[in-house]
Amino acid sequence: MSVFTVGICQMGVVPDKLVNLDRARQMIGEATARGSRLVVLPEMFNCPYQSDLFPEYAESFQDGPTVAMLAECAAKYQVIVVGGSIPERDEAGNIYNTSFIFDERGALIGRHRKIHLFDIAIKGGTMFQESRTLAAGSSMTVVRTSLGTMGVAICYDVRFPELARAMTLAGARILIYPAAFGPVTGPAHWELLMRSRAVDNQVYVVAAAPALNAAAEYEAHGHSMLVDPWARVLAVASEVETVITGKIDFRTTDKVREELPLLKHRRPEIYRD
Amino acid sequence: MSVFTVGICQMGVVPDKLVNLDRARQMIGEATARGSRLVVLPEMFNCPYQSDLFPEYAESFQDGPTVAMLAECAAKYQVIVVGGSIPERDEAGNIYNTSFIFDERGALIGRHRKIHLFDIAIKGGTMFQESRTLAAGSSMTVVRTSLGTMGVAICYDVRFPELARAMTLAGARILIYPAAFGPVTGPAHWELLMRSRAVDNQVYVVAAAPALNAAAEYEAHGHSMLVDPWARVLAVASEVETVITGKIDFRTTDKVREELPLLKHRRPEIYRD
Repeated sequence: MSVFTVGICQMGVVPDKLVNLDRARQMIGEATARGSRLVVLPEMFNCPYQSDLFPEYAESFQDGPTVAMLAECAAKYQVIVVGGSIPERDEAGNIYNTSFIFDERGALIGRHRKIHLFDIAIKGGTMFQESRTLAAGSSMTVVRTSLGTMGVAICYDVRFPELARAMTLAGARILIYPAAFGPVTGPAHWELLMRSRAVDNQVYVVAAAPALNAAAEYEAHGHSMLVDPWARVLAVASEVETVITGKIDFRTTDKVREELPLLKHRRPEIYRD
Repeated sequence: MSVFTVGICQMGVVPDKLVNLDRARQMIGEATARGSRLVVLPEMFNCPYQSDLFPEYAESFQDGPTVAMLAECAAKYQVIVVGGSIPERDEAGNIYNTSFIFDERGALIGRHRKIHLFDIAIKGGTMFQESRTLAAGSSMTVVRTSLGTMGVAICYDVRFPELARAMTLAGARILIYPAAFGPVTGPAHWELLMRSRAVDNQVYVVAAAPALNAAAEYEAHGHSMLVDPWARVLAVASEVETVITGKIDFRTTDKVREELPLLKHRRPEIYRD
């Protein structure tokens, strides 16, 4: 399908998993009612973004209520659901920041475990150490779907242009980033990074953030957005809870790639790592 | 030296090489008078940006007047000069889009031949085929200088994040792009690309463009700029002829790299080409 609507759920996350699941369900329903064929949730949509809470909210793929809700919604509404991310516990007890992806029948078609853990310390600004409680994923995630091939990566993963390029070279025509930038890096870099990944790789970029919750320890920047392969921002939220939608049209991708054939002009023999 | 001034000469280029050389000489003098230790000229500063004129304006390193002027100015003012670019003829008769770099004694310390030739055809917009008259360079250019290690690449080369990353991993703390974007790609992508290379690699980016000449076949976008490693635009020109200056302070680089250790967090085993 060359033209379809994507819905991005900029959810407000609260410290109650069941409330979050209900809210996600409602927002997926709203996105679907507005014509979305692909629905994307934000990073850590079932859990406040706090390292110490990840173990408490973590669940396994086998019997977790969040995963069950996502599969159910995908099948019920017959949409592809990129389930933002949640703290996932594996059989060995490791916890990952993981995105589960479901097709229109509710079948799992992909799983991304955040590769780059967010361990930063900006003086007078954001301090965060995901590695205190999380383990890192070890592979990139590119999924073939009925709507085209998509790459999924999470938040800090977007800081690494190599990953976006690798997903693109593996066939992704949409890069999807569930992400939660903060009050320092958000205004400074959020739009820049999302537009940059789009223009360099000539792909659509979907960035799904949680809404700002002023009562939370981590204040999310919001500004969920859809960017086209020419780096145009097609839809953008403010910081409040909302569903935004926009059109993905692969004819734009084809046109941009024909007019400015960046991917053909690469000279990897010169700058290979 | 951890703090110094860079001067960026946004030169108006005319169809007369000697006039261009005089103008470059004056602007290097002005940048130096304003305290610059590093002076950067734009892409094709001695020749209108037209494929069919490159052979006519081309000169060799051995006996070209442009190269002689650059070496002379560098030595006279005791500054590092990144000589934008010029059409360079080699011994086999190939013509390259080449940047010559001189140290404070006027000695050649680097030479970049544009790697990615600009062959594009935007419907109703920019049409250009550099490969009609130019040959492509085959290596990246990272130069150690008294002011730190610098990577130099030209215009369309900036579209390739791999090259910027490779220069950074080779030690560059400043990326210098003599470049001439046009009236379509300039407003759409110029600032985005320069800021993006800076924030991803945590380097200073110096972008040196020709001034807009409305009488020219190719209308340059101008907007020469200096960007810091946090993606802040420290200095920017409009489209008119001007010298802009700004401060490079590697303490900012160190601070940014300490607070947000992107280069240490890379996981090349996952996304190697």
